Amino acid sequence: MITLDSIQKRWQEIQPLVDRTPLIALPVQANEGGQRCWLKLENFQRTGSFKARGAASKLIHLQKSSPDKTGVITGSAGNHGLGLSAAASALGMAATIVVPRNAAAPKVAALQRYPIELILQGADYDAAEELAREIARQRGLEFVHAFSDPEVITGQASLGLEILEQSAAGGINIDTLIVPVGGGGLIAGVAAAVKQSRPQIRVLGVQSATSPAMFQALAQGRVVETPIGETWADGLAGRFVTDLTLEYARQYVDQVFLVSEEAIRRAMQVLIRTTGLVVEASAAASLALVLDQPAVCGSETACILTGRNVDLQLVRQLISD
Amino acid sequence: MITLDSIQKRWQEIQPLVDRTPLIALPVQANEGGQRCWLKLENFQRTGSFKARGAASKLIHLQKSSPDKTGVITGSAGNHGLGLSAAASALGMAATIVVPRNAAAPKVAALQRYPIELILQGADYDAAEELAREIARQRGLEFVHAFSDPEVITGQASLGLEILEQSAAGGINIDTLIVPVGGGGLIAGVAAAVKQSRPQIRVLGVQSATSPAMFQALAQGRVVETPIGETWADGLAGRFVTDLTLEYARQYVDQVFLVSEEAIRRAMQVLIRTTGLVVEASAAASLALVLDQPAVCGSETACILTGRNVDLQLVRQLISD
Repeated sequence: MITLDSIQKRWQEIQPLVDRTPLIALPVQANEGGQRCWLKLENFQRTGSFKARGAASKLIHLQKSSPDKTGVITGSAGNHGLGLSAAASALGMAATIVVPRNAAAPKVAALQRYPIELILQGADYDAAEELAREIARQRGLEFVHAFSDPEVITGQASLGLEILEQSAAGGINIDTLIVPVGGGGLIAGVAAAVKQSRPQIRVLGVQSATSPAMFQALAQGRVVETPIGETWADGLAGRFVTDLTLEYARQYVDQVFLVSEEAIRRAMQVLIRTTGLVVEASAAASLALVLDQPAVCGSETACILTGRNVDLQLVRQLISD
Repeated sequence: MITLDSIQKRWQEIQPLVDRTPLIALPVQANEGGQRCWLKLENFQRTGSFKARGAASKLIHLQKSSPDKTGVITGSAGNHGLGLSAAASALGMAATIVVPRNAAAPKVAALQRYPIELILQGADYDAAEELAREIARQRGLEFVHAFSDPEVITGQASLGLEILEQSAAGGINIDTLIVPVGGGGLIAGVAAAVKQSRPQIRVLGVQSATSPAMFQALAQGRVVETPIGETWADGLAGRFVTDLTLEYARQYVDQVFLVSEEAIRRAMQVLIRTTGLVVEASAAASLALVLDQPAVCGSETACILTGRNVDLQLVRQLISD
């Protein structure tokens, strides 16, 4: 497991490649229980999601450990591909990104703006990952997993330390932190950072009820294939977590909850109406837990809004409702 | 004219009633000229706009100078009314807010949530202001002007100091600051703060071409009645500036520009697409100048996004386009 010291050190190293993102208060009227809620605006992160952190961390590590490797490849629902593209461009490395055919349109459009090889293939995230691994073997490229990689997790962990630093500076006494969970890389890093610094803070994960891979793995005590239903939260939709991310979740995460697609859409609406923030459904899952199950939250809860790369036609539907 | 010292002091006093708002980078793809652009997110300010600053400043001043006055009244397009309502509620003062019948729906809805007297009357901002003055005389209430008041201007000035402080802390070397202009209260305060601290920074104002009251006043050297055309930027639509705000503009503002309604709508679209930020048209006017007339901007330009209280049906139209 990663140490606080290694997270701190890596955070320093990736500074030129990532942004510090704001922590703001949710306007009170959005939370009727009188609990305070804070939003960590990682949707403003470079490339539009927290994935910029993990990708920068991995590539900086690679440059030191395998300076002969100049090409990387990944399979991604979109945001990890964007993070890797940005970091690779900045560091002068070549990148190949495999995204599934069902990837969100704005993610594909954003990827096309980078000087990378973009392969649009596979029915879903897991298929894209498999294809990327195969191409990596054929071409001798370095495969960078979207979440199950200690160096990627170390990069995501910087987000945990940043929240602790900002809340301390702002006199905010966070007692609960809510993290959207797909494959579990973000919550692995964030929980490791937070629990090793301030173990009294509860770290809760949240998944869409239609893609509960980590929830199921925790319930059964092992990684299990989990079918995916219809979901707006494309960034959270993978059929598998891994032994690595499950181990982090068991050691550092207090509990993982499920929220309905309807609750996620309501949270997106509340964000637009009360703050003017348009985020992707995966990001709104954290606030959905606060609004839908306030009893599981503390009196000062921080929600990570993980990304903004959403199809605006979905947003249009929300505004019409 | 207000001094730096008085701004600093008032900023300290209003701290409990206002938020510090983020300064973020506009993603580079939005600005094709290679110039950097920074967004001051005053749309995240309490009550949804910068008006919370000026209102808090005025009421704190009133409590000290006229402790017998317990009731205030104003005429407002909406945001100043919201700022005054929030500050009055926090300080235990009674408030009466007159908004014109054409006020933006979300502003009226937000005002209804405060324990104030809300009067919906008058064809436009100027009519609402006149009515508020009359009621003030009848009832012996303290009339608080939406922009032409030294104490309100002193409060808005805190926004200028905050931008200077944040850009210095972030190593950002802003050379141009763009401020939306309606009656001129915001730019009066911000320009006074900035020019007395860092006179080399250019302070530019921007108005919708359909409501050019300050532009006309500067051109003619005196306050003139300026007809208002159709505009989405309700917060900027007043027929008059005042001698006071004109004097500030002449002393501290480098130039005031006009942008088209179409350019404002395009800026709203760019904000939504590249950052996921929904702001009101008045706020987007600052970015509209950068996108529409990049040659007038510097290499590091900061745009104030003044508020977020927009009718989402307008946003829906933008997404459809």
